[in-house]
Amino acid sequence: MKSSIQIGLIGMGTVGAGVVRILTEQKELIRRRLGCDLTLAQVADSDIQKRLGARRFEGAWTDDAMNVIRNPDIDIIVELIGGIHPAREYLLAAIASGKHVVTANKKLLAEHGEEIFRAATDRGVDIGFEASVCGAIPIIRTIREGFAAEPLSALFGIVNGTCNFILTRMSDDGITFDAALAEAQREGYAEADPTLDVGGGDSAHKLTILASLAFGTPVALKEVYTEGVDHVQPGDIAYADTLGYKIKLLAIAKHENSAIEARVHPTLIPKSYLLSTVSGVHNAVYLMGGSVGESLLYGRGAGGGPTGSAVVSDLIDIARNIQHGASGRVPPMSFQAAARAPLRIKEMAEIECRYYLRFMVQDQPGVLSKLSGVLGWHRIGIASVIQKARAAGGNVPLVMMTYRAHERDMQAALAHIDRMSEVSAPTVLIRVEEKDG
Amino acid sequence: MKSSIQIGLIGMGTVGAGVVRILTEQKELIRRRLGCDLTLAQVADSDIQKRLGARRFEGAWTDDAMNVIRNPDIDIIVELIGGIHPAREYLLAAIASGKHVVTANKKLLAEHGEEIFRAATDRGVDIGFEASVCGAIPIIRTIREGFAAEPLSALFGIVNGTCNFILTRMSDDGITFDAALAEAQREGYAEADPTLDVGGGDSAHKLTILASLAFGTPVALKEVYTEGVDHVQPGDIAYADTLGYKIKLLAIAKHENSAIEARVHPTLIPKSYLLSTVSGVHNAVYLMGGSVGESLLYGRGAGGGPTGSAVVSDLIDIARNIQHGASGRVPPMSFQAAARAPLRIKEMAEIECRYYLRFMVQDQPGVLSKLSGVLGWHRIGIASVIQKARAAGGNVPLVMMTYRAHERDMQAALAHIDRMSEVSAPTVLIRVEEKDG
Repeated sequence: MKSSIQIGLIGMGTVGAGVVRILTEQKELIRRRLGCDLTLAQVADSDIQKRLGARRFEGAWTDDAMNVIRNPDIDIIVELIGGIHPAREYLLAAIASGKHVVTANKKLLAEHGEEIFRAATDRGVDIGFEASVCGAIPIIRTIREGFAAEPLSALFGIVNGTCNFILTRMSDDGITFDAALAEAQREGYAEADPTLDVGGGDSAHKLTILASLAFGTPVALKEVYTEGVDHVQPGDIAYADTLGYKIKLLAIAKHENSAIEARVHPTLIPKSYLLSTVSGVHNAVYLMGGSVGESLLYGRGAGGGPTGSAVVSDLIDIARNIQHGASGRVPPMSFQAAARAPLRIKEMAEIECRYYLRFMVQDQPGVLSKLSGVLGWHRIGIASVIQKARAAGGNVPLVMMTYRAHERDMQAALAHIDRMSEVSAPTVLIRVEEKDG
Repeated sequence: MKSSIQIGLIGMGTVGAGVVRILTEQKELIRRRLGCDLTLAQVADSDIQKRLGARRFEGAWTDDAMNVIRNPDIDIIVELIGGIHPAREYLLAAIASGKHVVTANKKLLAEHGEEIFRAATDRGVDIGFEASVCGAIPIIRTIREGFAAEPLSALFGIVNGTCNFILTRMSDDGITFDAALAEAQREGYAEADPTLDVGGGDSAHKLTILASLAFGTPVALKEVYTEGVDHVQPGDIAYADTLGYKIKLLAIAKHENSAIEARVHPTLIPKSYLLSTVSGVHNAVYLMGGSVGESLLYGRGAGGGPTGSAVVSDLIDIARNIQHGASGRVPPMSFQAAARAPLRIKEMAEIECRYYLRFMVQDQPGVLSKLSGVLGWHRIGIASVIQKARAAGGNVPLVMMTYRAHERDMQAALAHIDRMSEVSAPTVLIRVEEKDG
């Protein structure tokens, strides 16, 4: 047994600083649990002067990540620079040199995970990535180990704190998307360029990783249907509320009949669901298993503390493997490499769900009849309608909840409806997830 | 690497049947994830004929558990008979013979955990007990591994589905405890003798295990303050609702200034807390960490499916260790045996919280003034009062929420108050947990 495992850290941003703080402040706790020390031996960052000003530690600094990767004393490399290049090259170089790696880089794993996991497996080193999805929520561990005997059928995640903060603010105070986004930026919950968050891309990265783990199949990011929250209107949130629903940006993965669904979009969920009560920047993942039934994990999804803690838990995990000569003990993608089986990812046209529709129509007799006629012709049944009269001759919103229908039929119906002369704006469609529909 | 790990099962009740079903139905999934088979080689049950009638499998049956324990082909023994004797003797015998063990026996671990964990550690075998606390919720794994670098400061658990079902029914429909219990028994959620559940004993068993894991200290069951739900009245649930709270049976553990609290009692929690929305037979555990902040795990706490799945996840975990020669990789009590440090458990008199009080008083002038005078003299401040007039001269309930106070002061005040001539029945006291008080 080694008395100390040596860590090399590449990238000293928010999460890196969190990792350094935890390794320093929790040194004693880590030793008591792990039985040896985790020593931060070397840190690489492009702007050493700036970082050094803010924080000091005992290890060595370098401005070249390859110095850390080539350092023969280091056992585990932590990659926290984010992005694709040069993070991919650094990880592959570290793996090639026989080092274990830990990363929080969801984008990289969503785009190049297959390559990186294969390299780690082939080289017999561990790769930890709990920090890549939902910071403090131990979702990777739970899917990979806690639910190792569970045939998971569905996963619903609120996996982007920025979007959830925005939707919560819009819902609680009726403010617009733009106002909520501006507040999120002031509070430090949203980036200056929020595209990746509010456009759903970040959620799609995480879903790609989770679906792949849950179902034992490669998932290509480009096959994940992705829709953001930027088009959600306060009015739709209010109508949903009247109907008994909350609107959340959900990352949805389902497995049925040897095919999977993987999609990210704003979703109506019943207010009685625990997931609907997850507010603010919090994240949560709901899992439906074969034997365990319903399960939910909830916590902070981002920030130096939660994400740093996930990195350190991976370091401890890998250190235990080093101490026991058990590297590769759990396959990174939760299934043995040879036992993964590609599953077909359904196109959106194939999915089925209930739908929330908001039409903007001319306030004149017969419009409801015409709309429902078109929907009926496309085999779409209407469960409820909200129609409020306005000044005659103006445009009014007409809201419908449908019964379960096929997306293909729905899109065909809307293509027809949006060309009708009585319809004055493109119809708003928001999908619904609930157990009985 | 072995191509198959051999399992011996002692006790074929609900959970045992769940384990057999999962091992059979998920054989392929387990192989794809673990890389080898888990084979159920032998089952011991005292009533083979009865069990055989209901269920068949390929392994061998015996009516003597010691035949399984002595079977040289078996790698892991699963103990599912419950109770202290002979479960303790079976587990110790299995450990002594060098077999790894898995158990769902919370009572045994709460009362004899220290002895059993020490035996396993000394013998170098693994002991899995995820199934002993909250079935499908991976709470043991999360405390031990996911949050390995987290200095946990508090844990609040709804860990008994029977009590939560009863309180949910009382809250939703205003029925009495007795009516809700009878319904729980009809639905199969409560035992014929419900004492261990409704008296809080089962929750205390689980809390003993969780607190010990979270804080790295032995916890003696007899030091856990335990109060059940059988005295909760529909009226108190209604008053709590008016005040903005739900009443839940909480298992509470806190760590502060080198001492811990461990207590089980009905508790008012704000309706805005996620924990307050956990309804029916579901379980949930809320954790407050140092870096991760707030975290919650939710799921089914009991039943053959959820608990069986937890047993099988432990089997997979231990099988991975066998395959990699890494037994003892994670210390069972989450801290290295030599690094556990006994922490003092506070007596109830030392705790501090807010209180809900319901007095039964004579409906006459000056009573409120007298009561508040006594409370004030004992340094207890009143935050709010609900007083409703009734027929003059009768007895009326008077409800108060206090500010944060010491339990010692509160008990002294109530001892005084309950002797007052204006007070016609013992005062009902329910503790409150909330962040700002």
